[in-house]
Amino acid sequence: MKKLEEYVMSIPDFPEEGIIFRDVTSVLQDADGLRLAVDTMQEKVEDLEYDVVVGPESRGFIFGTPIAYNNKKPFVLIRKAGKLPRETVSMSYDLEYGQATIEMHKDSIKPGQRVLIVDDLIATGGTTEAMIKLIESLGGVVVGIVVLIELAGLNGRAKLGNYRLESAICYPGK
Amino acid sequence: MKKLEEYVMSIPDFPEEGIIFRDVTSVLQDADGLRLAVDTMQEKVEDLEYDVVVGPESRGFIFGTPIAYNNKKPFVLIRKAGKLPRETVSMSYDLEYGQATIEMHKDSIKPGQRVLIVDDLIATGGTTEAMIKLIESLGGVVVGIVVLIELAGLNGRAKLGNYRLESAICYPGK
Repeated sequence: MKKLEEYVMSIPDFPEEGIIFRDVTSVLQDADGLRLAVDTMQEKVEDLEYDVVVGPESRGFIFGTPIAYNNKKPFVLIRKAGKLPRETVSMSYDLEYGQATIEMHKDSIKPGQRVLIVDDLIATGGTTEAMIKLIESLGGVVVGIVVLIELAGLNGRAKLGNYRLESAICYPGK
Repeated sequence: MKKLEEYVMSIPDFPEEGIIFRDVTSVLQDADGLRLAVDTMQEKVEDLEYDVVVGPESRGFIFGTPIAYNNKKPFVLIRKAGKLPRETVSMSYDLEYGQATIEMHKDSIKPGQRVLIVDDLIATGGTTEAMIKLIESLGGVVVGIVVLIELAGLNGRAKLGNYRLESAICYPGK
């Protein structure tokens, strides 16, 4: 049987020179790859107790929904500013160039609820850090973060302190 | 048991006056709502034979992945222009104001493969029509379209001619 890593296509110099882009879509467009990805992510956090799955726009939606569905949990969306129709809370954070703002619905998490964050990839960890702050501003308790791919060379893990991070595939580089 | 419709919050005058926004996130943020939504969509197309599930950015990802996962099919992304890392095909279509362009990876569908399109909502059907053309440009055969919500008053169904459209919830209005 093919290993999960073997479904990931690596594209050199995308989106700019010196970056190796790890392509999640090549995993998804294979039926076995998709199942193995979701199952491996789930297994990594199967000992965790959580009430809600949260995933960010747009590739967090891809892995967050099947994990929520399989485990009979709600799925809560984190979106870019201005896209959610009801009352929101928001969090801004710095990017390499400029700023980004993410939002959640105010009623999407209740104080004390345990939250599992699901995303496709962790790089520098900036978005993940902002997601944790946003969830905590609603009184949610982040019990873990699970991603398909971790780019360990960008050191996102260090930014997360004692929060538990699990990755299905870990690349040493950037 | 609550009906699927009861999980949908309706927001009057969003994003502009006179529009009733049907909010999919309120379905997702309830564990029973999420399961009922995915299960109902699957049941609507359970007699269909298909090889690939295709879903558009970003809310098509939410329903497309669990349906692909549950039925052991690949999931192929349709994204806005410039977001896919490998060689793509693209299709432009008219919006109320201006144009939009969507893309797929060239290798994501093989000629003759049967495709199920999954999306959250159909309104005027403009995006759906463009997705069908894009899939057919790769030789794919669209066997059906399934959405959570159909806004029948906007007449998207008429645009799809003989393509089979299934919706889990159908609102008569806009």
